Amino acid sequence: MSEAPKPPVVDVAVAALDIGGTKTAAAIVTRDGEVVDQITVPTPGRAGATAIIDTAADLVGRLRARATGTRIRALGVGSAGVIDHRTGRVLSATDALAGWAGTDLSGRLRALLDLPVSAINDVHAHALGEARHGVAVGHQTMLFIAVGTGIGASFVVDGTVLTGAHSVAGHAGHQPSPYAGQLPCTCGGRGHLEAIASGPALTEEYVRRTGQPVGDLRTVAARAADGDATAREVVLLGGAAVGSAVGGLVNMLDPAVVVIGGGVAGLGDTWWQALRGAVRRETLPSLDDVPVLASTLGSDAPLLGAAALAWEGTA
Amino acid sequence: MSEAPKPPVVDVAVAALDIGGTKTAAAIVTRDGEVVDQITVPTPGRAGATAIIDTAADLVGRLRARATGTRIRALGVGSAGVIDHRTGRVLSATDALAGWAGTDLSGRLRALLDLPVSAINDVHAHALGEARHGVAVGHQTMLFIAVGTGIGASFVVDGTVLTGAHSVAGHAGHQPSPYAGQLPCTCGGRGHLEAIASGPALTEEYVRRTGQPVGDLRTVAARAADGDATAREVVLLGGAAVGSAVGGLVNMLDPAVVVIGGGVAGLGDTWWQALRGAVRRETLPSLDDVPVLASTLGSDAPLLGAAALAWEGTA
Repeated sequence: MSEAPKPPVVDVAVAALDIGGTKTAAAIVTRDGEVVDQITVPTPGRAGATAIIDTAADLVGRLRARATGTRIRALGVGSAGVIDHRTGRVLSATDALAGWAGTDLSGRLRALLDLPVSAINDVHAHALGEARHGVAVGHQTMLFIAVGTGIGASFVVDGTVLTGAHSVAGHAGHQPSPYAGQLPCTCGGRGHLEAIASGPALTEEYVRRTGQPVGDLRTVAARAADGDATAREVVLLGGAAVGSAVGGLVNMLDPAVVVIGGGVAGLGDTWWQALRGAVRRETLPSLDDVPVLASTLGSDAPLLGAAALAWEGTA
Repeated sequence: MSEAPKPPVVDVAVAALDIGGTKTAAAIVTRDGEVVDQITVPTPGRAGATAIIDTAADLVGRLRARATGTRIRALGVGSAGVIDHRTGRVLSATDALAGWAGTDLSGRLRALLDLPVSAINDVHAHALGEARHGVAVGHQTMLFIAVGTGIGASFVVDGTVLTGAHSVAGHAGHQPSPYAGQLPCTCGGRGHLEAIASGPALTEEYVRRTGQPVGDLRTVAARAADGDATAREVVLLGGAAVGSAVGGLVNMLDPAVVVIGGGVAGLGDTWWQALRGAVRRETLPSLDDVPVLASTLGSDAPLLGAAALAWEGTA
C-alpha cells in the first residue's frame, strides 16, 4: 500500500478507481488531470464481487475522508472485464476476478458512496487518460494498444472512446495473425494475435523452443539482454506480431496517432524496434509518418481516464 | 448509356455523382433518398482528369436541364481514389484514372456547375448510402467491406463515415492475412488480404493452381458452379480470407452490423458460406450474433451516399 502524506487542498475534484486483476487503485483527480491523492491495494480477486466492490469503495471513502475541504463531485471507474458503460454492469470477465461477470458495478458503488458513478473497461480508461492528459493530447483520433497478459485496444475519436454496439470493442488481440499459426487462443479460437504475442504467449513460445521452463516474460527478456539468441528471437517475434497487426489497423482506421502500453511494451528497445519495423512494412506509403508512441502516464493513465469520464457526467 | 424517360417533378433535390474506374453515374436524389433521374456513361479514365471532370459535369448539366421545376441545392460526389473530404481534392488514385491524383475535384466541379460540392471516396459513399437508405438503416454503427478489384472498407458511426486523419481510412485490404502467405500486394507490401481475396487475386490463384489462363473471376465462378473442384476451392478460399479479416475487425470495432458489397460478393452462396463460417470462427462468443448482410442498393448505393453528403452541406 502506498499513501501520499499530505494531499494539497482543492475546492472540487472527482474520485477515480482502477480495478485490475491484481491491484485496485483509487485517486482524487482535478478537472485538469492532476492526481491530488492516491492509494493502491491488492484486488481481492478470489474473494468475489462483494469483496472487490467493498475494497474499492473503502479506498474511495478513505481518500474522501482525508480530502477535507474538497467537494467530490462524482466517481469514474475503469475495471477489468467487459463493462457496459451505459448501465455500468460487468458483462463478462476473466477468472482473475471471481464472480465479477454480472456485477452491477456502478449501481453498487453508487449505493455505497452516494456519488454519481460512470464505469468503463480499464483498457478504454487507459486510452482515455492518454488521449485527454497524456501523449495523445491534441490528436483528434488515437489507436491505443495494450500488450500485457492479454492484448486489448481502444479507438478514441474526438476524445470519446468507441466502446461498440455490445461494449466489446477493442478486442484487438482476437484478430487473425500470420505469426500465430494454429495456436489456441484464450477466447477458444485459433491463430489470434494474443495467442502468440501476449506476455504469457511469448513465455510459452520460449519454453516451446528451448524446452526450458521459465517463470515469466521478465526472465525471457533478461536472457535476451544477456545474449540468449532464442530469447531475443522470441522478443523480436512478439514485437513484429503486434506491429503487423497495428499496421493493418492503421491502414483501416487511419488514426492520428498510435499509442502502445502494457507490461510487454516495457520489454525494451529490441521489442520496440521489431514493432516499429513491422508497422512500417504493413502501412501504406501515405501513412508511414503516423506516430507510434509509448504510453507515458503509466499506472496513472486508467485513473485519469476514469476521472475524465466522471467529469463528463458532471457537465 | 441509360436514361429514365420521364423524371417525376420534385420541388427540391440534390445531384449526385459516382465516378468509378470504368463508369460514371449521375443522379438527381430527393432528401428521402429517392433517385428521381439517373444517367450512366463510361468514364474516360485514360483521357486524364479534365476529361473525367468534364464528362461528370456534363452528366449533371443534362440531368439539371431536364429536371424542370426542381431546384438543385448541391452536388455530392463519390469518387475512386483517396479523396480529402475536407478540401475535395484527390490525394491519390490507381492507374485506371490517369492524372486523377492532385485534381481539385470539388473546386473544378463547383466552378463548372455553380453548386456547393462535397466529395468523398466511392467506398465511403457506398457505405453511407447503405447506412442512410439501405440495409444498415437503424444501426448506430456499421462496418462496410467492398470486395472487388480491390478490397475497401468504411466504418460508419452515428451516420458519419470515419475517413481518418489523412483521409486514408478504410484500406481493409491492406491488413496481414494468414491466407495470403508472402504474396505481393498492389500496395508494395506482402501478405495482405487484397493479395489473395480480391477479384484479380482469386483469378490469379486459380491460374497458379491449374496452369490454365482464364479471363476473369466470372469464368472461375462458372467453373466452380459446374463442379470444377479447384475453382470451388478458390472461391471458398476467397470467402474464408475475407471472413477471417471481417471477424477480426468485428472483435476490434464491435459494429452493430456488417455489410458486404462489391463484385466478388456477387459470386454466390459458396463464397458467402465460406465468409460467414470464417467470421464466426474468429468472433468472440458475445459477438456471434452481429449480422453480416449483403449490400442491397447495388449501384444506387454510392449515389445515395453522395447525395446524403450533399444534403448535409445544405443543412
